[in-house]
Amino acid sequence: MTLLAIETATRQLGVAAIDGERLLASYELLAEHPHAVELPGAVSRVLQAAQTTLEQIDAIVVDIGPGSFTGLRIGLAFVKALAFPRRTPVVGIPSLDVLAANVPFAEGWVSPVLDAKQQNIYTALFQVRDGRPVKQSEYLLGPVDEMLEQMKQAAVFLGDGCARYRDQILGRFPRAQIAAPELWLPRAATLARLGRDRWLAGERDDPARLVPMYLYPFDCSVRGPDRPTSVLP
Amino acid sequence: MTLLAIETATRQLGVAAIDGERLLASYELLAEHPHAVELPGAVSRVLQAAQTTLEQIDAIVVDIGPGSFTGLRIGLAFVKALAFPRRTPVVGIPSLDVLAANVPFAEGWVSPVLDAKQQNIYTALFQVRDGRPVKQSEYLLGPVDEMLEQMKQAAVFLGDGCARYRDQILGRFPRAQIAAPELWLPRAATLARLGRDRWLAGERDDPARLVPMYLYPFDCSVRGPDRPTSVLP
Repeated sequence: MTLLAIETATRQLGVAAIDGERLLASYELLAEHPHAVELPGAVSRVLQAAQTTLEQIDAIVVDIGPGSFTGLRIGLAFVKALAFPRRTPVVGIPSLDVLAANVPFAEGWVSPVLDAKQQNIYTALFQVRDGRPVKQSEYLLGPVDEMLEQMKQAAVFLGDGCARYRDQILGRFPRAQIAAPELWLPRAATLARLGRDRWLAGERDDPARLVPMYLYPFDCSVRGPDRPTSVLP
Repeated sequence: MTLLAIETATRQLGVAAIDGERLLASYELLAEHPHAVELPGAVSRVLQAAQTTLEQIDAIVVDIGPGSFTGLRIGLAFVKALAFPRRTPVVGIPSLDVLAANVPFAEGWVSPVLDAKQQNIYTALFQVRDGRPVKQSEYLLGPVDEMLEQMKQAAVFLGDGCARYRDQILGRFPRAQIAAPELWLPRAATLARLGRDRWLAGERDDPARLVPMYLYPFDCSVRGPDRPTSVLP
């Protein structure tokens, strides 16, 4: 069972191919806005290195965000175009799940934090059970102070929001741990593995209906939400 | 302070540039033996994406192994050639340290395991303190069963040796945890960060004397060691 994963939710473009638990090939580039230019070449490269073809791919896994507005649009459009001719199944995974999986052995709580601009963050709260982060809240978008205020527990924080909001995080939770910056980006190989879990559970997404998860009250909004609902513990 | 890191110890080629704690750019390709062909292009690409040049690099960090015989030779030769004209400082970091840093929040012990062929593994034992793995043993090479026998504690295991020796590991330590396969490869961005720590501590390596860490009794040996010394707890 071969899966191709395409990760464009942040500044880091990633493509990976896995066969069962085996990581066959992967390509990652962190640069300024490389997605539109680099994505087709990266996919060819990974397919070639994995000695497979689009015809042999059982499903395509894609990061549906939240994250980079343009990156997500490019990634999803590309995945839909790849999936369309052969009706290849598509599996979408939220970026915050991919991020949380970067710290599988964290004790207790994990909180991925992506910078949503204008003092807003995307976040969610996970708890690690048996080496696997399990989501304990909704996916949230809101002002950083308000989001942190709702959290009752210190956590391991990771994601590009940690660069801008480190002081606020440590102000609210002096015992919080901030993961090293190389763990702040979702990775295609992790996306592939999480997609495999959903695929094995029989879950598929309809490519025609798959849209980026922006969490804004309406698409293309540039203002923050009025007041996001939350079940943060 | 800008560092360039070059990672060729395993099948995954990596190049990263960091400025202090900031990850400026990175490139990673997991494919069959891409190192010799891909390395020059990967370095140019990362320098360009990081908007820097070789002249502006303060030091080059390189993975000195143990790991792929040819990969390490290529990486070190390339780094020496880059460093030579400008006398750029070089900092070497062992692959097992880079690997252990992939699971910074593991509780207790961490054991990276690289396949050294012929039923041998490269390994070392680390203990995580304050989110940072601290080495507790020598770097070791030896028969997998003997290496596992010497370990007294279950651990989080990671590295390409986990694919081949999973059964032996879980046979010896039923409560061991094996990290997900995407964490089995040393990453250039992590290498850069560890190199920065050594560099900030004033440590440098003499490029002329830097050699890969093969751990064999003599270079180019194809037989296993007679009996490695060990301080595994």
